Amino acid sequence: MYATSLVCRTCGAVYPLENRYSCDSCGGILEITYNYDNAFAEDPVRKPDCELSGMWKYRALLPVKEKKNIVTLGEGDTPLIGADRIAAAWGCDLRMMVKAEMMTPTGSFKDRPTTVGVSVAKEKGYQKIVVASSGNASASASAYAARAGMDCVVFVPDTTDINKVVQAQSYGANVIKVRGNYSRSYDMAKLCAARYDWANVTSTFINPYTVEGDKTPAYELFHQLKGQVPDYILIPIGTGPLLVGTYKGYEEMLRMGLIDRLPAMIGVQVKQCEPITRAYEAGSEKVDGWQEQIKTAAGGISDPLLGYEGDGELTLSVVKKSGGMMISLTEEEILESTQAVETKLGLYCEPTGAVSVGAVRKLWNMGLLREGALTVSYTTGHGFKYSGRHPKEPPLIDDAAQLDRLMR
Amino acid sequence: MYATSLVCRTCGAVYPLENRYSCDSCGGILEITYNYDNAFAEDPVRKPDCELSGMWKYRALLPVKEKKNIVTLGEGDTPLIGADRIAAAWGCDLRMMVKAEMMTPTGSFKDRPTTVGVSVAKEKGYQKIVVASSGNASASASAYAARAGMDCVVFVPDTTDINKVVQAQSYGANVIKVRGNYSRSYDMAKLCAARYDWANVTSTFINPYTVEGDKTPAYELFHQLKGQVPDYILIPIGTGPLLVGTYKGYEEMLRMGLIDRLPAMIGVQVKQCEPITRAYEAGSEKVDGWQEQIKTAAGGISDPLLGYEGDGELTLSVVKKSGGMMISLTEEEILESTQAVETKLGLYCEPTGAVSVGAVRKLWNMGLLREGALTVSYTTGHGFKYSGRHPKEPPLIDDAAQLDRLMR
Repeated sequence: MYATSLVCRTCGAVYPLENRYSCDSCGGILEITYNYDNAFAEDPVRKPDCELSGMWKYRALLPVKEKKNIVTLGEGDTPLIGADRIAAAWGCDLRMMVKAEMMTPTGSFKDRPTTVGVSVAKEKGYQKIVVASSGNASASASAYAARAGMDCVVFVPDTTDINKVVQAQSYGANVIKVRGNYSRSYDMAKLCAARYDWANVTSTFINPYTVEGDKTPAYELFHQLKGQVPDYILIPIGTGPLLVGTYKGYEEMLRMGLIDRLPAMIGVQVKQCEPITRAYEAGSEKVDGWQEQIKTAAGGISDPLLGYEGDGELTLSVVKKSGGMMISLTEEEILESTQAVETKLGLYCEPTGAVSVGAVRKLWNMGLLREGALTVSYTTGHGFKYSGRHPKEPPLIDDAAQLDRLMR
Repeated sequence: MYATSLVCRTCGAVYPLENRYSCDSCGGILEITYNYDNAFAEDPVRKPDCELSGMWKYRALLPVKEKKNIVTLGEGDTPLIGADRIAAAWGCDLRMMVKAEMMTPTGSFKDRPTTVGVSVAKEKGYQKIVVASSGNASASASAYAARAGMDCVVFVPDTTDINKVVQAQSYGANVIKVRGNYSRSYDMAKLCAARYDWANVTSTFINPYTVEGDKTPAYELFHQLKGQVPDYILIPIGTGPLLVGTYKGYEEMLRMGLIDRLPAMIGVQVKQCEPITRAYEAGSEKVDGWQEQIKTAAGGISDPLLGYEGDGELTLSVVKKSGGMMISLTEEEILESTQAVETKLGLYCEPTGAVSVGAVRKLWNMGLLREGALTVSYTTGHGFKYSGRHPKEPPLIDDAAQLDRLMR
């Protein structure tokens, strides 16, 4: 293993690779560092470890020591799909592509951070996992805990879609509702980890190991695009680890000399809950937690960040550093995006996951994207995850004559 | 392309590679043949076309001429996962593995036959697709039609789970209910294809192209098992193309000299609808269509075969030729299997897809599997597909004191 230590992103304090969730000195967010000279000597992106499949091929850049501790369900290697028909329909002179991050074991991108978080927990001897999640991460943590034979407690806001709870329960997790918004569940998971010494794999920035899993789409894109770097990568943002992780993956490839520039990272939120976009638009580095009522079809990114506003600030700083931007969609735009992804691309997608596609249209119409640019939108959650659909009652026929009438 | 012609499996009549659904002379089931000498010269399994991803890497053994006609959503390369914990819990002295065929774009194995059927239809200039399906194949056909920009009509039995209709409708398909069981929808799709010249991609044996997609798990298993051949491959069976296709893939690899023996193929049905198992147990080569009422959690394989009993006979003949067997599970065994796959393996699975795992236990307890054998069970549909789950209302807490009481 080339991972060497935990480093505070704020004050630079260094810690060994223990189960630690924040900096002792300043409370800052921790990040994994590596002995990059040794890791890069393996050429780990161009020559991954093909004994392993999916994202674990890149294990030289992931913080797990022994192969035997990897808890995997075959996550990673998600398809990259051309979205020419959407670009044409929307009149965008762009090379639009979609990274189908819903094609994972549990149906959302969360499996990337979770597989790393649970593997590290196993390696450190933990038998119990705790997670706070409004849905997707709870299903993910429950699945990997089941795979590892570990117990799992899931804290969810009391408003969570019952269908997402069903999935976590099916894996055998102990689901507990916490009154209030997501931030209250988040606090409860922290408390539970501290009080009973369970491994907290909550997929914000609290667990520094999980974020490493979010680097892996970058390595995959390197292969899928034959070394070309997207001009823009668009990602639905609640807290932002997928965006921060992807950018870190690209920075590593730049240091390795595999690429000669970095993508601009675009974070996509929704008008109903847009704490990071608000800060971006105000030109502020400070993110305020979201106090307003939230009512959106994109529940998976409705993260108020109350109590961990610093997470949003980290994401915002990466967006800015990359030369990217933040944008938010209206409810109408969210549904339009979802429909486009489904009917023009053939990808079943939860509205949360589709906002990264609709954002391309919005930014194009605002004149904020270069003509002919290559855009990659991550669609982060499967259509099955969304319970807000209403089937149309199909016509019922008995025979050929009725078929004829229908086809006329 | 190395595919050369359509050959009748019954009388051997040969036809060009047109859109043909049965033999003119005898009504028999058609099969694609290849110029195998030329195809094998490419070493197409060991050295697949890595310009393509997923199952299309093996395109030398698939019946599509031009790459540009491939309609893909990134299907294939499904994970192979060790099920040691299930084997241990069940006391089976076996090396149990699971091929996670639910990890596909639309959530079921049907994407393998569909991608081939829709690609061939596109190559032949069709603009419209028709499919009959009790659920999974309808979602799959709708998705690939959307991807290709083609129209899609879906015929479903009037009892079909509304959630499966929602998925097909979301992709933009025109869903039509047909009164009666699946066989009635099947007839309507045939009629529609004949009357309006739409491409019928129904994933029984009616479309000979689709079945070729079902060969591809065999090629993947060759790589995943480093050349080892499973002793038993267990597959949930409605009609059986996935079993027949997988076996054909293995036969091709035997001819190529990549392997030196073939797996025994085990077809798994359910007591509530087991036309093929009944024939197997009666020692008959003749399959009778299922006339009884059906009530099962495994709706995806409840195929009465009424009117196309020959499909079941083809599957039965392959099972016997391979030295395999047919087995059926009770409803209790189906649910037990599903729970094992979910809680011990971490794979969310519809009951239909889990029967191949429960069948291992049943056959082991009957003394019908060799000690120490390698079994591979295909789990063919995602847990999201099943609407018969009942969430348990989770406990609700407000604060740390309540958490403590709950954890005690």
